[in-house]
Amino acid sequence: MNEIVKEFTQEYYLTAGECNPQGYMPVTLIASRIIEVATFHANSLDVGYSRLKEHGQAWVLSRLAIEMYRYPTVNDAYSVTTWIEGFNRHFSERNFEIRSASGETLGYVRSIWVAIDIEKREAADIGYLDILPSLVSDRPCPIAKQGRVRPLVGSYRTSPYRFRFTDCDFNRHVNTVRYIERVLNQWTLDFHDTHVIERFEVSFMQETRYGAEVSVNVLDIDQTTSQCEIVEAGSVKCRALLRFKVLN
Amino acid sequence: MNEIVKEFTQEYYLTAGECNPQGYMPVTLIASRIIEVATFHANSLDVGYSRLKEHGQAWVLSRLAIEMYRYPTVNDAYSVTTWIEGFNRHFSERNFEIRSASGETLGYVRSIWVAIDIEKREAADIGYLDILPSLVSDRPCPIAKQGRVRPLVGSYRTSPYRFRFTDCDFNRHVNTVRYIERVLNQWTLDFHDTHVIERFEVSFMQETRYGAEVSVNVLDIDQTTSQCEIVEAGSVKCRALLRFKVLN
Repeated sequence: MNEIVKEFTQEYYLTAGECNPQGYMPVTLIASRIIEVATFHANSLDVGYSRLKEHGQAWVLSRLAIEMYRYPTVNDAYSVTTWIEGFNRHFSERNFEIRSASGETLGYVRSIWVAIDIEKREAADIGYLDILPSLVSDRPCPIAKQGRVRPLVGSYRTSPYRFRFTDCDFNRHVNTVRYIERVLNQWTLDFHDTHVIERFEVSFMQETRYGAEVSVNVLDIDQTTSQCEIVEAGSVKCRALLRFKVLN
Repeated sequence: MNEIVKEFTQEYYLTAGECNPQGYMPVTLIASRIIEVATFHANSLDVGYSRLKEHGQAWVLSRLAIEMYRYPTVNDAYSVTTWIEGFNRHFSERNFEIRSASGETLGYVRSIWVAIDIEKREAADIGYLDILPSLVSDRPCPIAKQGRVRPLVGSYRTSPYRFRFTDCDFNRHVNTVRYIERVLNQWTLDFHDTHVIERFEVSFMQETRYGAEVSVNVLDIDQTTSQCEIVEAGSVKCRALLRFKVLN
């Protein structure tokens, strides 16, 4: 029987090697840390990888909304705290708060995780995780829930990409973070020097396999809002919505 | 005055999200951990990022030789221990041992770090780091030193790549790990399923900038040994030497 710990916090330190060219924590690393901290918390409660595997299941990250007030910069210590907001038979909603060493809130993240049947590659039932109701926390997460990211309408720009070996992970499909990289790469270094991401939403809709040739499509809605879609032969793999702040 | 700690060890845990499609620790993550642990050790001794920056300098990873007897697999705890083997006015030789939770040696890494002048982008003098002589450890590192990786001779295969935003790091050039990804991507998922990297050597020869269009060239010397070169307009950015073991 595992002790019920509704909140789990992990401390980190941002090295120079991890920073983006602007000298702060990249959105891709935030996504990696979120996945890692969720994994640690779930494992500590025995609702993680090993437990689901006994049932032929695995957790898959389905949606992510990252909202940052300020990013950690080089040599900053920071912490990531996670808790479960809700769940049902198929998915769980897990939130995160990122804080500086002095306790300042740097941002929040909302995530939705779906349990899939590893063989059938479809949504699975996690009703057997009877510890879940006792894990739900009422800690507030003051950022908006993920909206439904809609199809691109109108004239968009597009760029091709082929997913290769290092884009694929343990589940033998394209890794979450690699989709986010493809999205971020649709803007130049100059653009990233003069704009900072305030909010980043992404929905992972379908698995992408090794070798897939995709189009990365971007629709700039206004100067600070863009939609992005990764598509393989007409089937949408993921959609993202970005809100930038212009730096002065 | 920092306490002199010749050896520094960091504990890690390998999550599913970090594993390669074969279910073990990728060479790219080994390189990231090496950089991280070197950073932690150097910072703790005040011979790291902050100290060099006061002199307009930065540490740059110049060479790496990774030799693995066995890789950590999913949910394995492992540790990385580092120590300094030697140094001179321009570079330091830092070694690493990777161990399992039970203390089994999984592999060793040799690395060479060069101090560069941030403005001039050339080798700088670290003679002022007078703590260095007292840091040298005689702990053995039983893998061969990096050889000089020679130019490709003969008929090689080639594939193009353009470095983009997420390939660049804090130093505003292409990140070390991104070169290694380009190298690993020259083999298919099938090949990686049936071969494991026993030794990986890489020399970083020149910085590569955002937007660079490069050729990734591979010469297969025999069934288990290959050379690789990343070249931009005739100038060699890095060279790698890989030794694979065929899995039965």
